[in-house]
Formats: sequence, structure tokens, C-alpha cells
Amino acid sequence: MREGIERRLAAILSADVVGYSRLMSEDEIGTLSALKAHRAKFIDPEIARHSGRLVKLMGDGALVEFASVVDAVECARVIQRAMAERNRDISEEQRIEFRIGVNVGDVIVDGDDIYGDGVNVAARIEALADPGGICISRTARDQVRDKLDITLGDMGEVEVKNMARPIRIFRVPVNDMEGSAVSAT
Amino acid sequence: MREGIERRLAAILSADVVGYSRLMSEDEIGTLSALKAHRAKFIDPEIARHSGRLVKLMGDGALVEFASVVDAVECARVIQRAMAERNRDISEEQRIEFRIGVNVGDVIVDGDDIYGDGVNVAARIEALADPGGICISRTARDQVRDKLDITLGDMGEVEVKNMARPIRIFRVPVNDMEGSAVSAT
Repeated sequence: MREGIERRLAAILSADVVGYSRLMSEDEIGTLSALKAHRAKFIDPEIARHSGRLVKLMGDGALVEFASVVDAVECARVIQRAMAERNRDISEEQRIEFRIGVNVGDVIVDGDDIYGDGVNVAARIEALADPGGICISRTARDQVRDKLDITLGDMGEVEVKNMARPIRIFRVPVNDMEGSAVSAT
Repeated sequence: MREGIERRLAAILSADVVGYSRLMSEDEIGTLSALKAHRAKFIDPEIARHSGRLVKLMGDGALVEFASVVDAVECARVIQRAMAERNRDISEEQRIEFRIGVNVGDVIVDGDDIYGDGVNVAARIEALADPGGICISRTARDQVRDKLDITLGDMGEVEVKNMARPIRIFRVPVNDMEGSAVSAT
């Protein structure tokens, strides 16, 4: 440890609600109660099942920490599949969709909170995901590609705001059948 | 978690003694007692100071797990500097030198032991280090390059026995002054 700073490797999952401001302006109570119900019914249990820990909620987003990238990506896929199923029978305006990004970082630990570049990058990656989709960084890809039976889509190097270097991004299929144009490399 | 397999992200440090068989054949008791003394005097305390955990000793090698790559690389540098200092006043035949490799892996945890590709790769990387030197994988480099004030040497992609893909390797300077021909990229 250096200068008393505690660090640990973490798989960082960043999620946000697509169109949160619009949903809230249209139906504040309905949106919040739907989110709360989703959390109680399957999101929180899935996070627990994959040994994840909710670090914090930030308005429309959430930061979740996992000890394993494999667990983080599997958890993200289960949640996105469950959300897609729930959205099937709901009118488009009422649908709640998440974008999810997963990164690996040697983060700074301060009590229950985590900080650092690895956390910021996770949020940037999340913003690149399609509604209902999952994107991961190359460092996260390196840890899952031989361990999960899925084909990742290579989105190439993406220039991201306030980041010194472009980030190589991969798209994770949400469903097992879902083919991807480009195979994992 | 999948099928009850516990995984966690770990910084894996693999170390071995250069020319262990030769040292042992020349002076079994002297070599073992020197190694034991080095461990007690500074190796084990440095590992503890960087929150590392000795997973196992394997003949001429050791496997150490850290929660943070930054801590693992700093620990490796302190140990290699201390060894170089101790070797300065010893005849060449009696010198004990380590090779150290550091990797990041989403490893499988089984009690106190860890398994998986990430562990195997750490050992391969270690074998590529010079006596007294340190090599790390690209995934380890990604986590330290903006966090440690050192210039890494890019050794390029290296084909490694029994590994499906070549591994990009970086050389870590042991001393702070030590310039490296190629800067971190």
C-alpha cells in the first residue's frame, strides 16, 4: 500500500435508466415505484446471487461492484433479459430500459465507496451501450472471453470525453442465441 | 456465481529462483537457509505491507495474491531492489536472484488456493523476466500505467507455450532511475 491508500481490483458495473428525465417528467411516482419493484423482485436478488454489492445509487444510475468480471457480466445479462421480458407487455412510453457498462479497475477504496479512473471509465462505457444492452472494456473482455460461452461484438477504439486514451469497447450479447457480427478476438 | 464456482479478480505474482537446481546441487543447506532468511527479513514483511497473501510455495517458486495490481507491482519492485542490494557483496555463485511476473486474472477460488488461466499466465510471464527483473502482462499494465510513476518497456506480443494467444508483455524498471528504451503506451 502506498501512502495509506487502499486499493483493490474490482469489476465495476455502471447502469443507468434510458430516458430517466422523460419518464420522471411524465410519471414520477409510477417510474419510481416501477424501478423499486424491479429492484426488489429481481435486480437486487441477482446482484446478491452474483456476490455483487450496490455501492451507490445516483439519480438515474447505479454503481455495483463485483469481485469477479465473469459474475458481473453474467449478472448484467440476467438483468437485461429479465427487463426485456417485462417490457414486452408494456406500452413503449412506460418501458424502463437500462444501459449497462462493465469495466475492471484497480480502484481506490474509501469505506464503502470506490473511486478512480476505473469507475469513471465504467460510466463512459455504459453510455455507449444500446438501450437494453451491455458494453464492456477490453480489460473486462480479456477476463471473460474464454470463460463465458458468448460471442462479443468488437466496437473498436472509441474516443471518450475527458479520457487521455481511446477505449476499446465490446458489445455483450444479452441472449444466448444472439449472434454478433464480429466474433471475439 | 455459476455452478457454485467462486471467482475473484486478483493480481497474481509469480516468482522463481534463477538457477535453483544449480544452487541446490552446490549448497543445499546454504541455499535453503539463505532463502529462509531473505523471506523472514524482508520478503514476507513486504508482502504483508502490500496486503499480499502467499498462496503457495512450489519448489523454486512462489505464488502470491494481491487485491491490487498497484500493490503487487510495488511489492515486486521493493523485493527486487532489496535482493540486488544483498547480492552486491556476495560471490556470483552464491547470489540468489528472482524472476517475477505479475498478471491480473479472474481466478477460481478453492479454499486458500487459486486456479485458472490467470495463474498459469503469471508463471509464463515470470519466465520471460531477466534475473532480478519484473515482467507484467498488458492487463496488469492497463491498471498501473497511470498510477505508478515508472516507464514500462514494451516487449511486444510473445508467443507462449500452451497458450492460445500471444501475450503482450511489459518490463517494469526495478529502480526509479532506470530508464527504459520504450515508454509506456
